[in-house]
Amino acid sequence: MAGIRDVAKLAGVSTATVTRALRDEASVTPETKAKVRAAAARLDYVPSAAARALSQGRSSLLGLFVPDIVNPFYAEVAQGMADRAAEANYHCVIASSHLNPERERQLVTSLHDGTLAGLAATTVGTDESFTSALTGQRGPLVLVDRRPRGIRAPLVRTDNRKVTREAVGQFFAMGHTKVAMISGPRDFDTACQRLSGFRLAYKDAGLPLRDEYIRHGHLGEAGGLAAMRELLALPSPPTAVFCFNNLVTVGALMAIRTAGLKVPGDISILAFDDMSLFPLVDPPITAIAQPAYQMGRAAADLLLRQLGGEKSPADVVLPATLIERESLAPPGFN
Amino acid sequence: MAGIRDVAKLAGVSTATVTRALRDEASVTPETKAKVRAAAARLDYVPSAAARALSQGRSSLLGLFVPDIVNPFYAEVAQGMADRAAEANYHCVIASSHLNPERERQLVTSLHDGTLAGLAATTVGTDESFTSALTGQRGPLVLVDRRPRGIRAPLVRTDNRKVTREAVGQFFAMGHTKVAMISGPRDFDTACQRLSGFRLAYKDAGLPLRDEYIRHGHLGEAGGLAAMRELLALPSPPTAVFCFNNLVTVGALMAIRTAGLKVPGDISILAFDDMSLFPLVDPPITAIAQPAYQMGRAAADLLLRQLGGEKSPADVVLPATLIERESLAPPGFN
Repeated sequence: MAGIRDVAKLAGVSTATVTRALRDEASVTPETKAKVRAAAARLDYVPSAAARALSQGRSSLLGLFVPDIVNPFYAEVAQGMADRAAEANYHCVIASSHLNPERERQLVTSLHDGTLAGLAATTVGTDESFTSALTGQRGPLVLVDRRPRGIRAPLVRTDNRKVTREAVGQFFAMGHTKVAMISGPRDFDTACQRLSGFRLAYKDAGLPLRDEYIRHGHLGEAGGLAAMRELLALPSPPTAVFCFNNLVTVGALMAIRTAGLKVPGDISILAFDDMSLFPLVDPPITAIAQPAYQMGRAAADLLLRQLGGEKSPADVVLPATLIERESLAPPGFN
Repeated sequence: MAGIRDVAKLAGVSTATVTRALRDEASVTPETKAKVRAAAARLDYVPSAAARALSQGRSSLLGLFVPDIVNPFYAEVAQGMADRAAEANYHCVIASSHLNPERERQLVTSLHDGTLAGLAATTVGTDESFTSALTGQRGPLVLVDRRPRGIRAPLVRTDNRKVTREAVGQFFAMGHTKVAMISGPRDFDTACQRLSGFRLAYKDAGLPLRDEYIRHGHLGEAGGLAAMRELLALPSPPTAVFCFNNLVTVGALMAIRTAGLKVPGDISILAFDDMSLFPLVDPPITAIAQPAYQMGRAAADLLLRQLGGEKSPADVVLPATLIERESLAPPGFN
């Protein structure tokens, strides 16, 4: 198997330059990088994690911790992160806590030891032992989607509050007055920001918001199903519902279907986070799309920059977009 | 932080028993395991990967290699695997090659060094250098869904051929004679098995199969979209299509929608692999559901048994089920 010396010889550069070029460091010109990459590809050169760790004192693995890999949002973040990492000859592994803070803490602890060169994380844990485990990681840390209390690290996110305020405003513009939200856990800052946008839209419309129209703490399809059942059972059920994420939306749609109601005739639905099947659902679902793949790329980029020596890069805020389909209609529409 | 001695003391057993109990070994009684787990939970004891590797010479990480984590089938396999692994105090990391054999080979090579205690893999690579990298892994290996040529390791799969033969038979029972299949790459044995089941259904019906009704090599939504466009452009397009996986189905449905055609009025659709949104699509999609979560649990189980000393456990074949919804109808149905 070819070694770094063979690559250096073929490319006509030093082994140090090969290392820096394959790590995509700014000190190497694009021409040299191209030359080194071509030589590495031709010689089938793969720096192993072990070899890299031995020679450079660090691993070539980046980690991504997600709460729920079944949610395609995180799967797309993972894909973007892996693609960007591969460009700099890093590889990615994903760990999913299945929304279980205890498992998440164990994962962080168990990978504490230098297995990972850096870590990008969307976390569900909020207690102190967790945050200290997270900040005690050896390599750089990047947060994705939300910032747990007390953790300072660059964050990649979208402007949750603003896009929610504008999108939920459409319900009121159509004449809805009974608008509900299925929200996430109170200690998720994304849920808080989306809820804050939701409250601002109510304020913009000059309407009072009933407490019973906000359902907290729901995650996944089962959470969406339960919350929508509760909403439909209210003495005065809402005519429009904003769902705080995609899987919650799927559960909510199942509850509406089971109750024999129609979207948007009986109830309008707006989802946060798009899904590739939303355009094919009956009716196609209007959704706020986050650029998940780009968020993953940005997270890898922030890690690579820190691995390259940059201190505390700034947060990255990417735009989310409302994709209008057919799940919103004026109340009483048929 | 509590150590293994503290757990042993609280549970009233030896440290060796703690280790064996937390690894879920058969030599420890269920009562002792429960006692040890309770003590570990009470003391908040987490054996770190490093500590475990040091004390036992091996890691507590199991790896799952998948071709495409955006496909919810693999995400559910990952969830099942992580849940089963957690019961034995192992953690899981997932690596996705994004259907790129080169990246897959690099991932295998880069994790070659004992980072992982064991590896479960659904692979896309088929060449020799890849299979030798895979079989050169240090810990036990388990295959999920398909077996690359030349690799001997226990496999977790469903009975692809049988369930496909029966399900595709429904098209013929309804009176279809022009039935097509969007298949995967020729060197995927799952694609081969499903194609074989498809051919058998044709044979059962006593009908000739036109070559143009089999589209090879398509993966992902883009592949399904392209293949369905080709099928619709044939001089004699099919009236029913079997899609070899879920994402291919999503792409095929997009092509049908774009062409202004209706399912099942103009064309019937049968999917391999279910999705949680399939019941909500217009129309709800009939699908062959694999028990993805259970397959992940079985894969972890096979790894744990090998880590516990068992030599070459047998393959695990789990049943797949046809879930009848509304995307099949007789030809010319409206």
